Order: sequence, then C-alpha cells, then structure tokens
Amino acid sequence: MSSGKSAAQLLSASNIGALLDSVELFLFDCDGVIWKGDKLIDGVPQTLDMLRSKRKKLVFVTNNSTKSRRQYAQKFHSLGISVSEDEIFSSSFAAAMYLMVNNFPQQKKVYVIGGEGILEELQLAGYTGLGGPEDGEKRVQLTSNCLFEHDNSVGAVVVGLDPYINYYKLQYGTLCIRENQGCLFIATNRDALGHMCDLQEWPGAGSMVAAICGSTERDPIVVGKPSTFMMQFLLKKFDISTSKMCMVGDRLDTDILFGQNAGCKTLLVLSGVTTQSNLQHPSNNIQPDYYTSQVFDILKLSGP
Amino acid sequence: MSSGKSAAQLLSASNIGALLDSVELFLFDCDGVIWKGDKLIDGVPQTLDMLRSKRKKLVFVTNNSTKSRRQYAQKFHSLGISVSEDEIFSSSFAAAMYLMVNNFPQQKKVYVIGGEGILEELQLAGYTGLGGPEDGEKRVQLTSNCLFEHDNSVGAVVVGLDPYINYYKLQYGTLCIRENQGCLFIATNRDALGHMCDLQEWPGAGSMVAAICGSTERDPIVVGKPSTFMMQFLLKKFDISTSKMCMVGDRLDTDILFGQNAGCKTLLVLSGVTTQSNLQHPSNNIQPDYYTSQVFDILKLSGP
Repeated sequence: MSSGKSAAQLLSASNIGALLDSVELFLFDCDGVIWKGDKLIDGVPQTLDMLRSKRKKLVFVTNNSTKSRRQYAQKFHSLGISVSEDEIFSSSFAAAMYLMVNNFPQQKKVYVIGGEGILEELQLAGYTGLGGPEDGEKRVQLTSNCLFEHDNSVGAVVVGLDPYINYYKLQYGTLCIRENQGCLFIATNRDALGHMCDLQEWPGAGSMVAAICGSTERDPIVVGKPSTFMMQFLLKKFDISTSKMCMVGDRLDTDILFGQNAGCKTLLVLSGVTTQSNLQHPSNNIQPDYYTSQVFDILKLSGP
Repeated sequence: MSSGKSAAQLLSASNIGALLDSVELFLFDCDGVIWKGDKLIDGVPQTLDMLRSKRKKLVFVTNNSTKSRRQYAQKFHSLGISVSEDEIFSSSFAAAMYLMVNNFPQQKKVYVIGGEGILEELQLAGYTGLGGPEDGEKRVQLTSNCLFEHDNSVGAVVVGLDPYINYYKLQYGTLCIRENQGCLFIATNRDALGHMCDLQEWPGAGSMVAAICGSTERDPIVVGKPSTFMMQFLLKKFDISTSKMCMVGDRLDTDILFGQNAGCKTLLVLSGVTTQSNLQHPSNNIQPDYYTSQVFDILKLSGP
C-alpha cells in the first residue's frame, strides 16, 4: 500500500514485524508525536531506545521554526531523551540550508519575520539576519510624509511563526520583496495552526506567510513539510532509499503528505491534532500506510 | 465598448460629449482620484462643480475602511469639497450594511480587526463591536498552560486594514471563526497595498485578511470593491440603470473591475497607482472604456 489511496491499516501485532523489518530510518515529527508543549508523550523514551537497540536510525523533522537545532537538542535533553543536533531537522535549519544550497551570497542580508531559531541557524550558516524578535516592539509612524526605509542589501525574507508579528515587520518584509531586485521569499512552512501552548491552538506560520503573500502578491518557496526540500539532506547524510524510511507524524497534510511525497512509508499517530474520525472522514484524501494511537504502540505491539 | 476586452480609449474632446450625455451618475474612488493622502488632486473641486451643474449625481466609493462615512465627509469638507454623508460608500459602511441586509442578530457581537471607522459604522447600524484600536497594544502570554478566552457571542469577524495588527487580534479572530458556530468572516476588501502615507505604499487590508485566511483555512465574504455588494444600495437609492453610471478610479483590479462587474461604464485615471504602461502591458487583461491622466481632464476636455 504505497499509493496513499487505500485506507490506512491499524498498526497491530501482525503487521508491526513487517514494518520494523523493512524500515532502516524512522523520521519523527515532534509536537503531538514526541511531546505536547512541554510534556513528553507516554512511552516515547522506551520506544526510541528499543528502535535504537534494533539499529534503526532516527531523525526528528519539525516545522516549528521558533527553535534552532541546538535549542531543540536542549529540549530533548531536558525531557530526558538523548538526541544529537545532527539528528534534528527543523524548518529554521531548512531555511538556512535552502540559502546555502542555492549559493545565496554571504554579503546579502536576510530579513526574518519569525523567532530566534531562524536567526541562529542563519548565523551558523554564515549569513547576516535582520529583524526577528528585535523588531517585535517597533511601531510605525504613519504621518502623511513619512518614509519607511529598508535595507537594499536584503536578498531574502524568511517568514515563520511569529507571535510578535506587527505592521513594521509586514512593511519591512513587503518592501524588501517588492523593491529589492531578485529578493527571495522563503516560508519555513504554511501550517494554519501552531502548538503555542498545551490547551489550545494558535495561528501558525501559515498566517504570517499568508499576510506577506497578501501584500506582495507573491508565492513563497516552502522549505518545511510537506515540501521535500529537507529530504535532500537526509538522503545525502544517510544513503538510505526512501522506501526504507518511515515518517511518523500527527498531521495528515504536513507529516503524512511529506512522507508520501518523498516515497517513504507513513505512520499516523492519533496523539496530536488528527483524530480517527478526521482520518476516516470522506473528505480526507490523505491516507497513511498505518495508523495507531501513539508512538508507544510501536514498542507494545512488537512484543518482548 | 462594454466587454472590457477591447483596448481603452483615451478620453478626448471628441468622445467626452457622448460620455457626459450617457451618464447620469458618476462613482468616484477617493485615494489617487480625489486626493493623495491629505492633498487634493489638481482641479477636482471645479470638475465636481461642473458635473453637479449638469445635474449629474455623484457618489464616492472607497475601499479604505479606516474611516466611517461621517469621518469621510469631514475629510471632504476639510479639503474644501462639499459632500454629504449619504454620497459616501466606504467599505466600513458596507461591512455594517452586509450584516443588516443579512439580518445579523443585534444580540450577537462583531469582532473587528481594523480601524475606528468600522466600529463607528457598526454602532450606527445598532451592532456591538469589539476589538479594533482598543486591542492594538494587547500582548499574549504564551506559557504552557495558558488559555486564551474569547467571547462566544461573537457572530462575525470583520477584517480591514489594520496598522496595529498583532498576535492577540489574530488569535481572537481565529478562535471566533473556528469555534463560534456559524461565525461570519467578512473582509472590507482584499487590496494588497494601502495609501497610508504620500511617499510609498504599505500592506493593505489584503494582508490582514490573508493572515486570517491562513489561520482559519476559510475564505472571506468581501464587501468592498471589486465585489458588487455596495451596488445594491446605489441601485435602491438612485433607481438608475448601471449602464447610465460611470466608475472613475485609479486601480484596475478593484475600481475598474468593480465598475465592469456591475455593468457600469469605466474611466481609469492615471493620477494614482496605475501607470499607462501598466494599463497597456500585455499581462493586463482589465481594460476600462476610457482612460485619462486625471479627473480635471473631464472639465478641460468638455470645453467652456
């Protein structure tokens, strides 16, 4: 079942063996899969330990751009899971890597609508970022003869989830994209909602990205899921065919679609935003290969 | 030439007579047509006087929702032009009228992402508005167990140009639309850019509207140009066939399209955002019936 058109199979004691045997690399989404907000989901550490003991490779692929890879590794450690920075593929990292693989000139600057994580990844890649949290409290003067100045050496605008979005940043990003010749417009992702706290959802990067689409009348280059841009790095790093990879995630339109677009096996967990009735609703046309309630089931079903 | 497909005719001494004879009502856009920011465009008062002396009816149709009709009438007066409130059709007024003609219940509330003008028109129509400028300085607390509360009696969210856009307002509007059953999502307009000052353009209502589309995955009901919603009021008020109306504006995709969608004659003036080369560019498929440099030409070409 690789087309994604047939209905998903419930993960069970009778099919888990075949899945584990055929997969060398598991890709995990984080929010709703590994943790919810600041709380680890039940049984995750034991399950990851079991997979490592079977010599499976593990990577963590997240659309959340507010943190850098270093900051993500710290979060894993603070939750008692040992993960190295180079097992983490965040959309903040993907944005910096997009610039690098496209030979974006080091002397050009990058304007950021988003969090510290993007700025840190840009810096690690040797680029100069502007904006981000620093522009969060800036206000605009809308007098009749005001002139908003922007840096003409900005060659890319990166937009991610930004809880400090304001009119100053919208105008800055818009002017760069409209007026700086060849300026790139890069979206970390277009998720409608983001997990900003445990009890409810908040507007996601898709909201800020859409705001810039609305003012510039341009479409962004998306580097996070479901775009397969990050897969280039995984393939180069691991040299494993995507048919021997399994994407584990809680969102149909990002995680599962990302896995399917890349040719991976896919496993939906119901511990995040998607319910079984969402999955089985006639309007849903994204079917993973397998689904189960949570990551812990991989351990529980595979037996002692 | 009513299809809008043939190339626009330059307004001239030889065709102005036929235009004036066939038109009983002129609809004018304001920004870029009557004024630019706080400056009146040359020759406008004399031209409007001449049209009134020929017993032409005049109305002013603007997508700018930051002001109410009362505030627009004040602006006209401050520039030395006598215009009554009921000759003004702003998108702020249109939003309130949309609720009224659709029997929106008076006991339900309206959350506003936008300016004072929308709140004033809502109040005049008997509705209770929330949000607007009052929420401009509100910040969100993104702790892990935070819960953002919203009013369950909000039955409509109205989004217009908002220079004080922030994450609080995005979350408030998003929660109302996603969680309050049947909640309407109304956009004053979707213009990419707005005339916030004389020297450059700024992100328009289209940016804020897109941000809410991005987080709610819903499309708005648009009440401003190029939607012909406001035409219902004009037709009821004046009882003039749209073929005897002429829309005068500076934007192809709002003003001219609005006029054409309603079956009016259309006149593009080049005193605002559209240049002659924009008009004549092969990628442009919106052709007005006539074009000229500015409103004053109507007077100058029609002779003594």
